[in-house]
Amino acid sequence: MTLVQIIMGSRSDWPTMQKAAELLDQLQVPYSAKVVSAHRTPDRLCRFAKQAADEGCKVIIAGAGGAAHLPGMVAAMTHLPVVAVPVQSKALNGLDSLLSIVQMPKGVAVATQAIGEAGAANAGLMAAQILATSDDALAERLIEWRRQQTEQVPEDVE
Amino acid sequence: MTLVQIIMGSRSDWPTMQKAAELLDQLQVPYSAKVVSAHRTPDRLCRFAKQAADEGCKVIIAGAGGAAHLPGMVAAMTHLPVVAVPVQSKALNGLDSLLSIVQMPKGVAVATQAIGEAGAANAGLMAAQILATSDDALAERLIEWRRQQTEQVPEDVE
Amino acid sequence: MTLVQIIMGSRSDWPTMQKAAELLDQLQVPYSAKVVSAHRTPDRLCRFAKQAADEGCKVIIAGAGGAAHLPGMVAAMTHLPVVAVPVQSKALNGLDSLLSIVQMPKGVAVATQAIGEAGAANAGLMAAQILATSDDALAERLIEWRRQQTEQVPEDVE
Amino acid sequence: MTLVQIIMGSRSDWPTMQKAAELLDQLQVPYSAKVVSAHRTPDRLCRFAKQAADEGCKVIIAGAGGAAHLPGMVAAMTHLPVVAVPVQSKALNGLDSLLSIVQMPKGVAVATQAIGEAGAANAGLMAAQILATSDDALAERLIEWRRQQTEQVPEDVE
Amino acid sequence: MTLVQIIMGSRSDWPTMQKAAELLDQLQVPYSAKVVSAHRTPDRLCRFAKQAADEGCKVIIAGAGGAAHLPGMVAAMTHLPVVAVPVQSKALNGLDSLLSIVQMPKGVAVATQAIGEAGAANAGLMAAQILATSDDALAERLIEWRRQQTEQVPEDVE
Amino acid sequence: MTLVQIIMGSRSDWPTMQKAAELLDQLQVPYSAKVVSAHRTPDRLCRFAKQAADEGCKVIIAGAGGAAHLPGMVAAMTHLPVVAVPVQSKALNGLDSLLSIVQMPKGVAVATQAIGEAGAANAGLMAAQILATSDDALAERLIEWRRQQTEQVPEDVE
Amino acid sequence: MTLVQIIMGSRSDWPTMQKAAELLDQLQVPYSAKVVSAHRTPDRLCRFAKQAADEGCKVIIAGAGGAAHLPGMVAAMTHLPVVAVPVQSKALNGLDSLLSIVQMPKGVAVATQAIGEAGAANAGLMAAQILATSDDALAERLIEWRRQQTEQVPEDVE
Amino acid sequence: MTLVQIIMGSRSDWPTMQKAAELLDQLQVPYSAKVVSAHRTPDRLCRFAKQAADEGCKVIIAGAGGAAHLPGMVAAMTHLPVVAVPVQSKALNGLDSLLSIVQMPKGVAVATQAIGEAGAANAGLMAAQILATSDDALAERLIEWRRQQTEQVPEDVE
Repeated sequence: MTLVQIIMGSRSDWPTMQKAAELLDQLQVPYSAKVVSAHRTPDRLCRFAKQAADEGCKVIIAGAGGAAHLPGMVAAMTHLPVVAVPVQSKALNGLDSLLSIVQMPKGVAVATQAIGEAGAANAGLMAAQILATSDDALAERLIEWRRQQTEQVPEDVE
Repeated sequence: MTLVQIIMGSRSDWPTMQKAAELLDQLQVPYSAKVVSAHRTPDRLCRFAKQAADEGCKVIIAGAGGAAHLPGMVAAMTHLPVVAVPVQSKALNGLDSLLSIVQMPKGVAVATQAIGEAGAANAGLMAAQILATSDDALAERLIEWRRQQTEQVPEDVE
Repeated sequence: MTLVQIIMGSRSDWPTMQKAAELLDQLQVPYSAKVVSAHRTPDRLCRFAKQAADEGCKVIIAGAGGAAHLPGMVAAMTHLPVVAVPVQSKALNGLDSLLSIVQMPKGVAVATQAIGEAGAANAGLMAAQILATSDDALAERLIEWRRQQTEQVPEDVE
Repeated sequence: MTLVQIIMGSRSDWPTMQKAAELLDQLQVPYSAKVVSAHRTPDRLCRFAKQAADEGCKVIIAGAGGAAHLPGMVAAMTHLPVVAVPVQSKALNGLDSLLSIVQMPKGVAVATQAIGEAGAANAGLMAAQILATSDDALAERLIEWRRQQTEQVPEDVE
Repeated sequence: MTLVQIIMGSRSDWPTMQKAAELLDQLQVPYSAKVVSAHRTPDRLCRFAKQAADEGCKVIIAGAGGAAHLPGMVAAMTHLPVVAVPVQSKALNGLDSLLSIVQMPKGVAVATQAIGEAGAANAGLMAAQILATSDDALAERLIEWRRQQTEQVPEDVE
Repeated sequence: MTLVQIIMGSRSDWPTMQKAAELLDQLQVPYSAKVVSAHRTPDRLCRFAKQAADEGCKVIIAGAGGAAHLPGMVAAMTHLPVVAVPVQSKALNGLDSLLSIVQMPKGVAVATQAIGEAGAANAGLMAAQILATSDDALAERLIEWRRQQTEQVPEDVE
Repeated sequence: MTLVQIIMGSRSDWPTMQKAAELLDQLQVPYSAKVVSAHRTPDRLCRFAKQAADEGCKVIIAGAGGAAHLPGMVAAMTHLPVVAVPVQSKALNGLDSLLSIVQMPKGVAVATQAIGEAGAANAGLMAAQILATSDDALAERLIEWRRQQTEQVPEDVE
Repeated sequence: MTLVQIIMGSRSDWPTMQKAAELLDQLQVPYSAKVVSAHRTPDRLCRFAKQAADEGCKVIIAGAGGAAHLPGMVAAMTHLPVVAVPVQSKALNGLDSLLSIVQMPKGVAVATQAIGEAGAANAGLMAAQILATSDDALAERLIEWRRQQTEQVPEDVE
């Protein structure tokens, strides 16, 4: 298993979640991505969550929308850090996704990012930042990525 | 196992959830009540949800607050109807509980009630209404309970 | 009268509510569907609600948007379980529909589903789950439907 | 029957709704007040709404909280103007009451006031303003009431 | 001056507000319509509000969006009933319009309708209902309009 | 007239608005404070707004709650900068105050602060910052006040 | 440095923020505009904020969206008035931008405008109003601009 | 410097943030805690954020309320993971804190927890989970802590 596992509640979440993958690509962090639905495939969820640490995964990125239970339920079954992405929903624009992900009770934590694509990209970044706490080379790549990002912000408005 | 199982994410939800129990008592519907935390006891959740039907349960009532994943996750692992109660939360007054319970994706349904005690009482009522679809005696008791409720609404304001 | 009655506040709700009908079709549950407006046809509403049980209906599915009074008012006049669908509204995206349906006072319950098409589909599912509490063949079809749904969730993201 | 009828969904709404009564007292407009619950006494609601005009009522004031269906359902069964008061609810502070009252579909109107006691007082005022469109003496009393209100606003802050 | 005056904060509100005009046309109630901006033409607002009653106006319909001060400020300067329409705004979909119109303090009332076109149509209806409290012929036309509306609700869903 | 005028919609707003006064006291900026209600004293509002500039006022601070029209209506009748304070309201905690103040249409601006006492204090600060654009001594006092504020933030947590 | 500095968190904010520039053009107030990202260019932010006053800037206009920290952070490092524009965000329509800008704690103030283009235009207006407190010619131009705006509001609706 | 640094915008945040400290104590993770205000002590913020990594800190926990800029601004100046706690605010109950923390733009991530004390405790847990990705002994303590938490959930409701 790769260091980072990206999971999402539905294949329709992939256009959002692939922003996480792109970020990890840029930072040269190996990852896998697959669909794990908390509601439609609860057994797959349990297997995934319980095996992830044993198979070498270090950080999990989980994205879901609406009544988004995937990140919290994975976090309930592993001690690995779970970085969560509230996918933008149709009726409530992701406010439901956000609240159902972030308002976890004491004792089981997730690391919630912004709603939608920006949040997915930042989930990739946060996963890398977590790994970089014990990987100096990755820390260097992160610092360099951030430096380049800073340089690429133009000062002029058009 | 009794016909109705009342579960809740934390013992602190009992003051709310016992309103469901009181309603079932009034309608003479046998029930049990216990704590099953989606996040802190995920294995207990899985066992409960998978065995409920086999053990004779017909309707599940599930209450939880905040990022409330209990009703939806139980519903993901049983074909029994799950009646859900969003428990009033501290910071967001149960709006988080409500959205994280009601906004389920297509394919796994829960029967959401109002936030807090009124919703819990109505969860008891809804469970009885569901059982009454195949229990004429209970249907009679329900009709009588509703008739008495109507009679007990005074017309004068003080 | 069929076992399940689908009613909605306006013909414009049908594109949403027919997702309930599709689900019932898949589960081979007979249903009827018609327009009953709480506000524009209150007498039709009263007649419908009071006769439904006598005519053999077991579960009512009611969808409405905005200040959505249909589900709660039907529930006020029958002891049958009413499964409710908040139709997505124009200005407030169904948040008004949801709150005006779900926040029922103690004593009259509805079984609220998610806003919009997912909620409508789940209303069909919930109606079937309710009927299945006393119909083993339907319970088998439900379990099979759920099994197929689980199998059809692909693991790969594209 | 008096010119103004004040109805409310529950006796517990009276502390709010009596602010409407106080205003009508000040303006010498006769009124009655009673409990009519849309959900618990739907027949009383129908009788009330259909008879109000015939019995000489000119304006109806209706207050309710939560999934507040009373004002809209009364308005569905009379052509009299219905002035509506969203009573402050426990969990959502009356936002549910407000949205379930004000978001009426085209064809059945209510005249919604602010949440809570200020709204109830203004419901009394609005009822008087409506009656004053054909009652010059009442119009004079209204103008005088408003003049006194203006005079009673002190300029100094303590 | 006509019996009903329709005012709006901006010419861009007319596509919404003309639904009020259409309703009044159907009920044969004479009206005028003009732009009065609380913020850009405060003197026009004061003149309008103070003269309306003297010039024979009986009911004012006022529509505005965003920080919508027009209905409340007109109501502050006349004893005529002011029926208010929260126009749907760009960023917040009219929630800002609704709250800034409906949450009036005790002592100055407006009769708030739903957000957008449905609310505008209902503002026309409410104005007619108010006038009908002293105009039996209009009351008859209202009852007939409502009867036709009821008849025109089809029972079949397509 | 003093350089800064503090106005508020009701005497009950003074406990909030006096935080603005305290800040101005600390910065030695002269001010006056009085009650001007947009809804209950519209003529006082017009007189105040139209005369403020002529009488030597440079900045207006206006606080109001609920459907808070005072800041925007003052701004509509003066070219002086109006600093606005959304006073915390009872039912909606000031969200109504905030939206009805801040969502001004193009062409009439207010300078909105936070809800409640922190916002009132900052209104005093902002008024001083505005005056300091042409008053070097005040600018010095502001810089010193800010320096002291910074120094007074302890680093230890208890 | 010019009297007014317009900064924004991203080049994508310019279509919104140029409405501020257009207003300043109309009022003949010199300004500059550039991109300063609180998050991606924090050092540029610090340099900008600390030097603005020394380089002759009198008023800063800052626009940002989402978790919008730019206005508040600039305000934390200068005593100049900062006029803030919440840029409309993708998922939450600018409600996040608004709350993260306006809810500043006591001691550091910003002058918040409406969400989006109307707010940006008003930021230009507010900057001019602030400068006009010590520039009589600009005050005249403002009064004239406002007079023309008033004249250009047509009374007829089409 | 310790492995985990807890910072907060104000001493008044400590009753919330010490729940993070308690969790770290239980897991035997060394930490420090201090007040760093983004708005009142921006230089302290810059120094802290830029030195944290060099001084041996691995994870930062940052709590703030209202327009909560501290977590995002720290994250802008370090590549260390920043775990964020939205402190419950007075008027808006922490919804402002949550949105101004979580809605970060692409390129600078924070790991947001729930509003208030539960979120603070989980921030401590998440910091430990991050450190445990490279500390097997801590991972064992975490697993044990979670096991005990699971055991301590009673099944009976009273």
